[in-house]
Amino acid sequence: MDAEIITIGDEILIGQTIDTNSSWLAQKLDAIGINIKKIISIKDSEKNILHQLAESESSAQLIILTGGLGPTVDDITKQSLCKYFNTQLVRDEKVLKKIEHFFISNGREVLESNRIQADLPKDCTILNNDEGTASGMWFEKNDKVFISLPGVPYEMVHIVESEVIERLSKHFNLPVIVHKTIMTEGIGESFLAKRIEKWEKSLSQDNIQIAYLPKMATVKIHLSANGSMSNKKELDRKIQRKVNELYQIIPHHIFGEDNISPEENIANLLIYKKLTVATAESCTAGYLAHLLTSTPGSSTYFVGSIIAYSNAVKIKQLDVSESDIKKYGAVSKVVVQQMAKNIREKLNTDFGIATTGIAGPLGGSRNKPVGTVWIALASKEGVYSKNFQFGENRKRNIKHSSYAAISLLRQHLNGQLKIRLK
Amino acid sequence: MDAEIITIGDEILIGQTIDTNSSWLAQKLDAIGINIKKIISIKDSEKNILHQLAESESSAQLIILTGGLGPTVDDITKQSLCKYFNTQLVRDEKVLKKIEHFFISNGREVLESNRIQADLPKDCTILNNDEGTASGMWFEKNDKVFISLPGVPYEMVHIVESEVIERLSKHFNLPVIVHKTIMTEGIGESFLAKRIEKWEKSLSQDNIQIAYLPKMATVKIHLSANGSMSNKKELDRKIQRKVNELYQIIPHHIFGEDNISPEENIANLLIYKKLTVATAESCTAGYLAHLLTSTPGSSTYFVGSIIAYSNAVKIKQLDVSESDIKKYGAVSKVVVQQMAKNIREKLNTDFGIATTGIAGPLGGSRNKPVGTVWIALASKEGVYSKNFQFGENRKRNIKHSSYAAISLLRQHLNGQLKIRLK
Repeated sequence: MDAEIITIGDEILIGQTIDTNSSWLAQKLDAIGINIKKIISIKDSEKNILHQLAESESSAQLIILTGGLGPTVDDITKQSLCKYFNTQLVRDEKVLKKIEHFFISNGREVLESNRIQADLPKDCTILNNDEGTASGMWFEKNDKVFISLPGVPYEMVHIVESEVIERLSKHFNLPVIVHKTIMTEGIGESFLAKRIEKWEKSLSQDNIQIAYLPKMATVKIHLSANGSMSNKKELDRKIQRKVNELYQIIPHHIFGEDNISPEENIANLLIYKKLTVATAESCTAGYLAHLLTSTPGSSTYFVGSIIAYSNAVKIKQLDVSESDIKKYGAVSKVVVQQMAKNIREKLNTDFGIATTGIAGPLGGSRNKPVGTVWIALASKEGVYSKNFQFGENRKRNIKHSSYAAISLLRQHLNGQLKIRLK
Repeated sequence: MDAEIITIGDEILIGQTIDTNSSWLAQKLDAIGINIKKIISIKDSEKNILHQLAESESSAQLIILTGGLGPTVDDITKQSLCKYFNTQLVRDEKVLKKIEHFFISNGREVLESNRIQADLPKDCTILNNDEGTASGMWFEKNDKVFISLPGVPYEMVHIVESEVIERLSKHFNLPVIVHKTIMTEGIGESFLAKRIEKWEKSLSQDNIQIAYLPKMATVKIHLSANGSMSNKKELDRKIQRKVNELYQIIPHHIFGEDNISPEENIANLLIYKKLTVATAESCTAGYLAHLLTSTPGSSTYFVGSIIAYSNAVKIKQLDVSESDIKKYGAVSKVVVQQMAKNIREKLNTDFGIATTGIAGPLGGSRNKPVGTVWIALASKEGVYSKNFQFGENRKRNIKHSSYAAISLLRQHLNGQLKIRLK
């Protein structure tokens, strides 16, 4: 069953508003087995709206519109829909009472522009909006369904969840779709695809679709399979079998499922294992600590950090050996190991993580180009350290280094990385 | 001049990715006088791409595509374009060398799927991508221009800024639009609008358009006026006069012009004045240090930081009085002042900035609800501190606190905030 989403609003076409409504709607509709063929943004213009409605009607069975239902003169979706369906606006007394109540209970005056919100097309089913004054509308024409929703995100979300999803499932007798998202890290999209090439090819035998979704330091693998209610369990099993296979192929790179972020995942692990961590940061300069504290409850495992941007701070606050800095440089195995070891001891935590590197754009040399980063993880057993070579972009180097540090800790907590005294 | 933007990618149609590229592009194109008629998202399907290309060609003079240029099998934009323009892929040796260099200099293997990125349509102008391996493409057909760009946002942005904007202005002989963006902070959009109401009304006499663009801790005021090359100087003068007036009305809230960020601005100020800074962070937990180090050259003014998330670290590493923490609580004027004063002395800097607060969602109380934050700024003259009440959202509280801290330092450096010993 094909659908199209039409977003109406000048502010989107001049780039002042990002269309998050369509994305949210697409996810909701995809999850109940509706195929979103197209998402279209157009201006608040009757001509454009009528043209788009006709175009979308010719290629989809479900057309969802958002936006243009407000009380100001530039909102013309309702009028355009009346024209398209050859009907007219009539004042709905029930909706009017609700609108008047909405303002009066908030101690506000009811303006005529607010009352006009109760004028709704004669030939539609009104979708109740408990969060605002713009009602949703459901039209049917030749087996096709048109739904018009307000553009204010929380009003739109409310109407979809309370009024739209169930109606759609019934009206279109929708298939069941089973989804699974596997979160990977530490491997780029193309290398990942190559590594799991054979496995990926085997998916088609089970009619499982795959999508790779790369995002800063992670690649999501999204699997989905269509079926009906009667074989939902079988679909679940088929997908789970493939997920299990994937865990065998790339155990070190999978850190979680279902859209969990690396920082949420490490937070869960540390809370579950009742372990604490501190960081000593040079090139990441607080971004690693920021990631580790971005989840509620982080004070149970994160104790603190010393950001040693200058060598003086490395020496004075982190007790790094001055002669070692002179001998090996601040970006070196020797220094990063001392940083990790010392911060752990100073702040009395289970783990110390340290970073030192050249974020760029300046500071690189032949031997240590921009993007050279050392990361160390210290526990009471000893220190593990690793050298990374990221790219030339400063902001990305800072973020990549921070995620790489979280990855090392995660691998250690999962038993994939042993720390030895060295 | 009408344009349409086509975004290609299954991930958008299933709601896994929000299409931020189109919004960014729309803003850029709007700024040079191009009218975006429609933004369309479609799947990675040759049929859909060809169909959409034909549809857009019939209604716009400029068609910009993003997405589908990656190295995996689901990326088919290039092949579809070849079909549409009746041409074929040929390996571009210059691009190939760049791709090989890109991987080898990062110490990575070059896969065949990466080399294939150098196969580009015979009849297009290649748009150089310095940030990745997918080149942009510029096609011309019957006076219409088609541009294909990678979907990775920073690669797309790079190509547009370095290769596309100027070409478009020349090719379409676009009108002159004069822009000016004034950056404000410390005042919400509606309060700002009320404060400058009279000034705003006066803009229409000069045919100057205004837009308010709020974004985390700042509101941009964007002014623009259309004209031709012959009256450009007059437009410039008209806008500059209005900008000067604005500086008179809200001097404390303006921190810069032309999209400079608060963190870039403070970096410039510190470098210019040859001053150094250190931070002692509790609730911001490194985010403030991250902002202060996000600009190249930050090591000239940023020395380091102690993130004292636990009280133990506040006491042991920052020498905050244990009895004061017991008496006043960790989120208090007394504690934040000690933090700022002590970090400045410990790290031997011109300024010490400290934050302590309740980021949430837990930890709030009747007297100190979630969002309560104390920020202090210490110099050799003394300490200034201020209490803030932000909202309930953890991530926003962390960011707002960090920007508020930068704002205090900026106001002090601009002579708008005196630090007295207290």
